[in-house]
Amino acid sequence: MKYGRKILETVEGYTPGEQPSDPDVIKLNTNENPYPPSPRVIEAVRALGVNALRRYPDPLCAAFRAECVRRYGLPGPEWVIAGNGMDELLALALRAFVDPGDHVTAPYPTYSLYEVLCRLHDCVLDSVDLDASFQLPEAFYSLPGRLCFLARPNAPTGVSVPRAAVERLCRKFPGIVVIDEAYVDFSDDHCLDFPERFPNAIVMRTFSKSFSLAGMRVGIAVARPELIAEFVKVKDSYNMNAFSQAAGLAALEDYDYMRENAGRVRSTRTWLRNDLLALGFDVPESQSNFLLARWNGTPDARALFQGLRDRGILVRYFPHRLLENALRITIGTDEECAALLLAVRALVGA
Amino acid sequence: MKYGRKILETVEGYTPGEQPSDPDVIKLNTNENPYPPSPRVIEAVRALGVNALRRYPDPLCAAFRAECVRRYGLPGPEWVIAGNGMDELLALALRAFVDPGDHVTAPYPTYSLYEVLCRLHDCVLDSVDLDASFQLPEAFYSLPGRLCFLARPNAPTGVSVPRAAVERLCRKFPGIVVIDEAYVDFSDDHCLDFPERFPNAIVMRTFSKSFSLAGMRVGIAVARPELIAEFVKVKDSYNMNAFSQAAGLAALEDYDYMRENAGRVRSTRTWLRNDLLALGFDVPESQSNFLLARWNGTPDARALFQGLRDRGILVRYFPHRLLENALRITIGTDEECAALLLAVRALVGA
Repeated sequence: MKYGRKILETVEGYTPGEQPSDPDVIKLNTNENPYPPSPRVIEAVRALGVNALRRYPDPLCAAFRAECVRRYGLPGPEWVIAGNGMDELLALALRAFVDPGDHVTAPYPTYSLYEVLCRLHDCVLDSVDLDASFQLPEAFYSLPGRLCFLARPNAPTGVSVPRAAVERLCRKFPGIVVIDEAYVDFSDDHCLDFPERFPNAIVMRTFSKSFSLAGMRVGIAVARPELIAEFVKVKDSYNMNAFSQAAGLAALEDYDYMRENAGRVRSTRTWLRNDLLALGFDVPESQSNFLLARWNGTPDARALFQGLRDRGILVRYFPHRLLENALRITIGTDEECAALLLAVRALVGA
Repeated sequence: MKYGRKILETVEGYTPGEQPSDPDVIKLNTNENPYPPSPRVIEAVRALGVNALRRYPDPLCAAFRAECVRRYGLPGPEWVIAGNGMDELLALALRAFVDPGDHVTAPYPTYSLYEVLCRLHDCVLDSVDLDASFQLPEAFYSLPGRLCFLARPNAPTGVSVPRAAVERLCRKFPGIVVIDEAYVDFSDDHCLDFPERFPNAIVMRTFSKSFSLAGMRVGIAVARPELIAEFVKVKDSYNMNAFSQAAGLAALEDYDYMRENAGRVRSTRTWLRNDLLALGFDVPESQSNFLLARWNGTPDARALFQGLRDRGILVRYFPHRLLENALRITIGTDEECAALLLAVRALVGA
């Protein structure tokens, strides 16, 4: 194409995940929260007046960031930046800390967006396979690079590496370590203390999963002020609109509501995993709001995916190396997961 | 800074324009619309249910783009992309069509963000001074480059170059021509027909000014499908949240409401310009919702800016070459502009 960039020639446009219009479809394919956001969030966005629409929004999201400081016990607002979804912050991290041509590291398999972002930024992604337990292999710690993406818990495995492994990585890695905590509210522990302990640690969170706000596009990054300042340089001036700022603020103010929903998801996750194990699936213990269910029987995983789809149940199947035999199943309500299990039983003839 | 990129060392973080909390301040400094957005927009965003928050938004904004097709008579939805404000689309244009190190052209003075975006993308901006009438000089047409930014009407001059000049530019320029129509709804004509006529023309519009939606972050780019496809590759998957998509759609559906407000702004613009001319200001005829009022008397322009500020009236003063003697005044309501004029008279002793 005459006007396009050469590096984009082999990049494909984003293919949206299925968002069926049929309300009866059981949607366990995009790791959304099955429970609605806090009523206080709805109230907050509906309370916004005409001036919130007419005037430019706060470019630095002061009120929302101040609430992040209070809620997460950060040293101050200069330790946090808000983004139009965590995906924006991941892209900004490359633009702030990595020159085109430089190397970036990540384990494999992991969140596939990292690879897309590296290609768009024209940097080199060095991927290292996780070991059989989905843990970081020894070789990972000695890689050079400007930036390392580490999803904890990881997607689509659901597995968290130990905090000690992240500490070791932060000490050894010469560049920035992005600890992607998108799913951390469904986990036993987190690394939000790392930015204070390590000058190269950036912790990112999304409000799409635990806070049920995927439609609002809200994410945050926590890091030392000198790193946050670099994000501010590269972001769009007004990257969050008035509604997403208000929604993020109200969601944090009703933190207990989120914790309660996350607890329900964890309870459902426990029984669903046990039942899948009983059916013969190999399901690593998940710290996320999804399960990676590996299956080596017949019909194969792809056929199971299709069979579920035919029954009005959407899960995720990745036709990628090391994942061909697996389904990623978002934890829905107890009812949705019971329906899933019933369908799986029928398909595998159990 | 150990982790930051060298190209960012001299880039300063964004300094937000003044957004005073005092509601009595007369705010004529950021080119916002003095009138509220359409009541239908308010209704549309308040009508969004919990699933609009809980689920991922439409990554490709199908409903909003379909309305753009209807309203603007485009050949199809593949001719338009929606952005989180037009600023996002300007940044995406560089990432889609310009390699780091390449040359980009723009007249001077113009929207200062172009220069910031070029520095962040590590490309070279070749600026050429406009002539004394704020028109494109002959030299501008023979510049090489991957992309050209042309604001029409231009900011902060308010002046539009003739359509014939843009045609000539599109024919001669070897790269992409971004026609920034942020202020075009206050103008006598537009270039929305250019994408069908020229393979390198991209027309961009914002909903921040004429539609009174600065707080929502809504912009569009119109171009041939092969150019739009490049934008899709480089944008964040979910770049617009559910609320901004709904607001943009509802705003287009109530197009007459916008036209009426734009007409009121134009009427106010006419008398304010005449009165400023009568006071001895040099004010080019504006096609925008602001006036560039040049002043070579005493007190000087900077002192006028400060004097207005002391009286609770904010306008914009740019301490930049060719603009030192000028104020940029956003067209407010008749009452606001009358108050401005009264204050200006007092300050210049008229």
